[in-house]
Amino acid sequence: MEKRTSNKSSLAQIAALLNDAGSVLIFPHLQMDGDTLGSAVALCSALRKQGKIAYVLIEDEIPGNLRFLDNGYCTSDYSGMEADVCIALDCSDWMRLEKRQEVFNNGKQTVLLDHHATSQPSFAEYWYVDKEASSTGEILFMLLKEMGVVLDAEIAEAIYTAILTDTGSFIYSNTSASTHMTVAELYKTGMDHNKIAVEVYQRKRLEKVKLFIAILNTMEMICGGKANLAVMTQQMLTETGALPAETDGLVEELRSIDGVEISAFLREEEGKVRVTMRSKTKADVSKIALKFAGGGHTKAAGCTIPGTIEEVKPFIIEAICEELDSIEG
Amino acid sequence: MEKRTSNKSSLAQIAALLNDAGSVLIFPHLQMDGDTLGSAVALCSALRKQGKIAYVLIEDEIPGNLRFLDNGYCTSDYSGMEADVCIALDCSDWMRLEKRQEVFNNGKQTVLLDHHATSQPSFAEYWYVDKEASSTGEILFMLLKEMGVVLDAEIAEAIYTAILTDTGSFIYSNTSASTHMTVAELYKTGMDHNKIAVEVYQRKRLEKVKLFIAILNTMEMICGGKANLAVMTQQMLTETGALPAETDGLVEELRSIDGVEISAFLREEEGKVRVTMRSKTKADVSKIALKFAGGGHTKAAGCTIPGTIEEVKPFIIEAICEELDSIEG
Repeated sequence: MEKRTSNKSSLAQIAALLNDAGSVLIFPHLQMDGDTLGSAVALCSALRKQGKIAYVLIEDEIPGNLRFLDNGYCTSDYSGMEADVCIALDCSDWMRLEKRQEVFNNGKQTVLLDHHATSQPSFAEYWYVDKEASSTGEILFMLLKEMGVVLDAEIAEAIYTAILTDTGSFIYSNTSASTHMTVAELYKTGMDHNKIAVEVYQRKRLEKVKLFIAILNTMEMICGGKANLAVMTQQMLTETGALPAETDGLVEELRSIDGVEISAFLREEEGKVRVTMRSKTKADVSKIALKFAGGGHTKAAGCTIPGTIEEVKPFIIEAICEELDSIEG
Repeated sequence: MEKRTSNKSSLAQIAALLNDAGSVLIFPHLQMDGDTLGSAVALCSALRKQGKIAYVLIEDEIPGNLRFLDNGYCTSDYSGMEADVCIALDCSDWMRLEKRQEVFNNGKQTVLLDHHATSQPSFAEYWYVDKEASSTGEILFMLLKEMGVVLDAEIAEAIYTAILTDTGSFIYSNTSASTHMTVAELYKTGMDHNKIAVEVYQRKRLEKVKLFIAILNTMEMICGGKANLAVMTQQMLTETGALPAETDGLVEELRSIDGVEISAFLREEEGKVRVTMRSKTKADVSKIALKFAGGGHTKAAGCTIPGTIEEVKPFIIEAICEELDSIEG
């Protein structure tokens, strides 16, 4: 297909596109988290309630603690699907649509909503990126308002899941007064926030817990105790039966130790290592990620480096210690 | 002293008492948590900024992760202290003032603010109990408004700590739309919520984390996956350098696994084993504890059994499976 022009748009424009569409395909990013899937389900539910054809297209498995979100919205059987609007949610770059890229491009109009600081939105014709928003869920809440959608408990619970998970239960620095105001509005629909908390946090899969234990066993303190690092091998996945996506929360667990400013989590993949990093206060992990052609936010960033864990580890440790030295200097 | 009349009061009445007072003593409950201490510090800071004499009277040690709250407000040297108003916060019954009862009674006027469903407030002359409030912090926010106090970041951060900790980071069922509205107001003072989250949740001692990992490595699923069990040996304490008290939260961690109804944590002590149990929904762990001369509540109980871990374990497993069978039958 020919290259189409890409434009930063207002939420009002995007709301109009969606209201005018008869069919909409919604694209969460690969390795789904609560924000991408919660936002997708909320939008899909709202569109179907307007009488439109709408689906959430996925290509990997929904993490166990998020399966409650899918009330018949998600499908991974999308070959040849076409729609008036294809909208990607929380998708900071084109690669995160992977096998669904062609279906996305077949949309008569393509849209992206995102909140990542390093967002590369130009793969969509219309895009809205709010780097101040805690989550794509918070942006979606504003979009639904623009569309004139009246929220019900189901939609509110999906948006709540998005905000809850992306703010680490409202404590990450991305949480703002506006995040709490949004959540107060969601409560007014009569949603059951306690049900969501139990689903998300108290139905941990045994396989996931076993994987966490295996990964935590590899934890090592680096840079004089100011940072730490843990790794996951493919063998751990096989032995525990856990899914690759079931490492969410692990790197935050590493960071919760006193004195640790940066945490890094290294995942073995085919011929490469995926690195996820978090900082606690002043360190900027997106600077480290950028050195390895990755990206993210100041306090949450990642990159993918060719090689094995043993090959990659020394470079990551060096870069982390350098960043820690620079903030002390 | 003579018995004084006790009255349910309005926040406006209590605000007037405090505004008229020259000196105020503030009483958090014994075994301080974030709600009682955060509320106490917020009130003390507000009163001192009005030019009054104010202290927070404590009799036990401030937990490590809450020490940041005390900017010179707390004292445990209070013999002979007297004040115009003595106010207890989050204190559901008289016993929780323990050694400070006499000082409290010496107040010209005595007040209680609380939110516990089981509150027995009549030990104070003036009391306000809101069982719908998520926390005493949320009530204190309203009280300061009644008093005409303009919140600053320090006061807001103390109230935020109170609400954050008593709602389990805004997920317990006591959290309401009004909780989130209150927090949005607190943000407007320019408070640093991330700093508080770091202090409260991200200063885990490395020794404690290592102990958790060691204990979790012993986790075994029992009774067909409906229960689990983990053990701590004395050797684990020696090897990790952790303190015996640093196992708090461990048994809840075990319980958070999907399908687990009962969790048991066995601690090796000299010639005996201490057993801590939790249930998730219907099982009654106090019945199990009673079989071994222990006790507790339906969802949290414990007992101490003579012998080694290996000797005690089969009996505990049998009793747990029996309880699970009985609730299914």
